[in-house]
Parts: sequence; C-alpha cells; structure tokens
Amino acid sequence: MAQNIYDDPTFFAGYSRLRRSVEGLDGAPEWPALRAMLPPLQGLRVVDLGCGFGWACRWMRQAGAATVLGLDLSESMLARARAMTGDPDVTYRRADLEDLDLPAAGFDLAFSALALHYIEDLPRLLGRLRRALVPGGHLVASLEHPILTAPSRQGWSIDAAGHRIWPLDGYQREGARVTDWLAKGVVKQHRMLGTTLNALLGAGFALTRVEEWAPTEAQIAEQPDLAPERERPMFLLLAARAA
Amino acid sequence: MAQNIYDDPTFFAGYSRLRRSVEGLDGAPEWPALRAMLPPLQGLRVVDLGCGFGWACRWMRQAGAATVLGLDLSESMLARARAMTGDPDVTYRRADLEDLDLPAAGFDLAFSALALHYIEDLPRLLGRLRRALVPGGHLVASLEHPILTAPSRQGWSIDAAGHRIWPLDGYQREGARVTDWLAKGVVKQHRMLGTTLNALLGAGFALTRVEEWAPTEAQIAEQPDLAPERERPMFLLLAARAA
Repeated sequence: MAQNIYDDPTFFAGYSRLRRSVEGLDGAPEWPALRAMLPPLQGLRVVDLGCGFGWACRWMRQAGAATVLGLDLSESMLARARAMTGDPDVTYRRADLEDLDLPAAGFDLAFSALALHYIEDLPRLLGRLRRALVPGGHLVASLEHPILTAPSRQGWSIDAAGHRIWPLDGYQREGARVTDWLAKGVVKQHRMLGTTLNALLGAGFALTRVEEWAPTEAQIAEQPDLAPERERPMFLLLAARAA
Repeated sequence: MAQNIYDDPTFFAGYSRLRRSVEGLDGAPEWPALRAMLPPLQGLRVVDLGCGFGWACRWMRQAGAATVLGLDLSESMLARARAMTGDPDVTYRRADLEDLDLPAAGFDLAFSALALHYIEDLPRLLGRLRRALVPGGHLVASLEHPILTAPSRQGWSIDAAGHRIWPLDGYQREGARVTDWLAKGVVKQHRMLGTTLNALLGAGFALTRVEEWAPTEAQIAEQPDLAPERERPMFLLLAARAA
C-alpha cells in the first residue's frame, strides 16, 4: 500500500493552502499544457487516478464526459471532493493505486495528475489500467519529472559563477526518495524517464506525446517565482493510447 | 549544412585517439545496450547515419545484414572507413544529414550512433528517414542525452557537502551549445527529451524502447572512470518502428 501522506494532518493542512488547492486547476501552472493533451471529452467514461479534491473530475464532466470516477487513497481529500461536487455522474471512491481494481474495458480515458510518482509498482498499475481501458482508449498523466526527483539533495544551488543550477545526481539510482515537503518523510518514487516510458510501452500503450513542462513567458510575467522552472523540468506530461 | 568538425585536423586527431576510435565498438561502453536494441539483422538493408570509421557498418554486415550504406559528412572519416572495409556490400557515401536524400522504402533498418545531436532540423531528417524505410522498418539510435547537453557550463562540480553533482540549467532552452571538446567551438544541438520523442512520433514512428544508458557494475570495475556516469545519463538510446 502506498504511503497515505495526504491524511497526515500537517501535510493535509499545508497541501490545502497551496495555490492549486485554493484556486483549483487555474492555480496549477501546468494545467493548460495537460488540458491540451486531453482528447475531446464528449461522452467519455473517465477514471481519475489520484483525484484529490476532484477539480479535474468536475472540469472533465463539465467539458462533456459522460461519467467520471475519481479514485484517491486519502479520506480527507475524498471528503472534501464529495462536499464540492453536486453532480451524480461524478463519483469518488477510496482506492489504493498500488492495487487497482477496475472493470475490464470500463473506461475511455484514464487521467492522473501528480500521483504516479507515489507508485512503487508502476508496471502493475499500468497493466491493470490498460485492461480497464477500451482498445484505443486514452491515458493522459502528469508526474514529477525524474530530474526533479533524482537528486540526493533536492533544491536549487548557486554555483561559483553565481548562476542558479539544479545539482543533479543519482539519476540512475531508482527507488524511494524521502523529502520534507509540507510534512516530514514524504516518500516519492524516482524512476528514469526511460523506465516510465518503457513501463507504458510494456503495458500495451502506444506513446503519443511527451511534454517536459516549462512556464510560458506570460505565466512568468504573472508569477515571477516560476522563472527558475525553465532551467530544469518540474513536471512530465504524457499522453498514450491503449494499443 | 551541419558543422563539419570531424574534418577539423585538431578534432580529427583527438577523435582518432579516443578509445572508441582505436578499439571500435568494444571501446564504446554503451554499445552492448545499443546492440541489444537492434532487430535480428539477417537479410536487412541497413543505412547508418553518421557512420564515422564504419565500425558498426562492418559489424552489422557480419551479423547478417544484406547491405549496409554508411553516410557521413566527414571525408576524413569516410576515407578511413573505406580503407578498413573489404566487403562490397558495405558502401560509404558522403552525405549531409541535414539534407538527407535516400530512395523511398529502400531500407529495413536505420542506425545512428552519436550523430543526431549535431542535427539542427531533426523533424526534417526523421521525416525523410521515415520515407526511406519500409513500413515496419526499424530505427535504432544513440545520441547525447539532453541532461548532458543542456548546461551553460558542462562539467562536474563538487557541492558544499563534497558530493559530485552535475550542475544542470538551461534544460528548456533549446538550441545550439558550443563546447570545447577535442577542438574549440564544437556545435551541438540541445533538445529536450520530449522534443526528440515528439519529433519521432510526428514523423510517423512508433516508439518501442528508450534507454538512458548507465555503465554496469562490471564496466565500472573495469573502467573506474565510468562511475560518475551513473549520476546523470550521458547517452540516450532509442528504438522505434516506422508506422
């Protein structure tokens, strides 16, 4: 079972204050790029892996999805998601993504925002997800970029010449990374980009798009603290089709 | 036209002394991983983009390829390749990969070792290469990893805690990188990994495998100076099929 850090009161309180928690999708700078990778949603049966407060679930339903099932491990997240949702075709269910249990060919689109880097056994999850999708079904996901998760000491440095650099090491050492982000001891899984892509291909997906998200000039003008995100990718955005 | 640095006498002399130039494929630590991505070669018509001294051309012919055409921009490289080759089914031709001109559906396998990071217009090259391959044809290529090419100052650093780190910046700033490697002013093209993969997909290839090469324990035992290469990927190895 994956670590359930979102039900840690300190983490949950901190996460609830993030811009993306308060403002929803508009507070997530990578959302426009991720949204652009979605197929036309009209009539689709959607599953959202790691739905959190359900912002994307509600948005996809309003954009035409027939039904949206949001899965999350955190009771705190699901309780708030349910309280914010008044649409009977958006439902939420507690689920451990490490042991995904979905009906075969029950969905046309699987969506996942910033959840897959918590998963230990990604090939198993992707295999089960492939079976839960119809042939030709879509997968669109964001996750923390491996350049972000790799270093033994995650954080910007200033080099001898005064340049801001991301001190990369450990890229090829895959496995757990324990960081103090909102709470102590948050466990994320570092995988090379190639490992993630090969897991997708091995599970029977055809890759259709890879984006290593960077803020636009307009976003930096509005939020100058995003500027360093152009120096190294923060998020990896993937689109694939069930083969 | 791409920079023809391999015909620069200083560069050529330096390159000729590299282990991979003296020992051939056995002197290239990534060769076993790249070789493992090749399809069975029996009877294949092969084109090698950036063939250099022709080591891989001769190896692929001996491994069963019907014909191998080696292309390179450098007359110095081609002259030595021809001098080392006594097989009439291995031929060499001077070609600028920026303006690739090959017969349609004339090849079953396109191979390229450490050449694509010199190419300015990768989508154009890949589009022409797609047309030169039969449907289902294979592409297997190595190139410098974008984590290697990105930084404004390419080289290892030691951080305040004494750890060896790769000072990454500029990952999302794509374009030329001028480095002093064997000679002054060697121009390579930095592209994000996603950009390279999307160019492949956009040209009509289906991705089949991505490897971010790292030395094995046995290789490090034999060549201890390879150990840092586990901290950040040096080479990107790609396999794809013409859709």
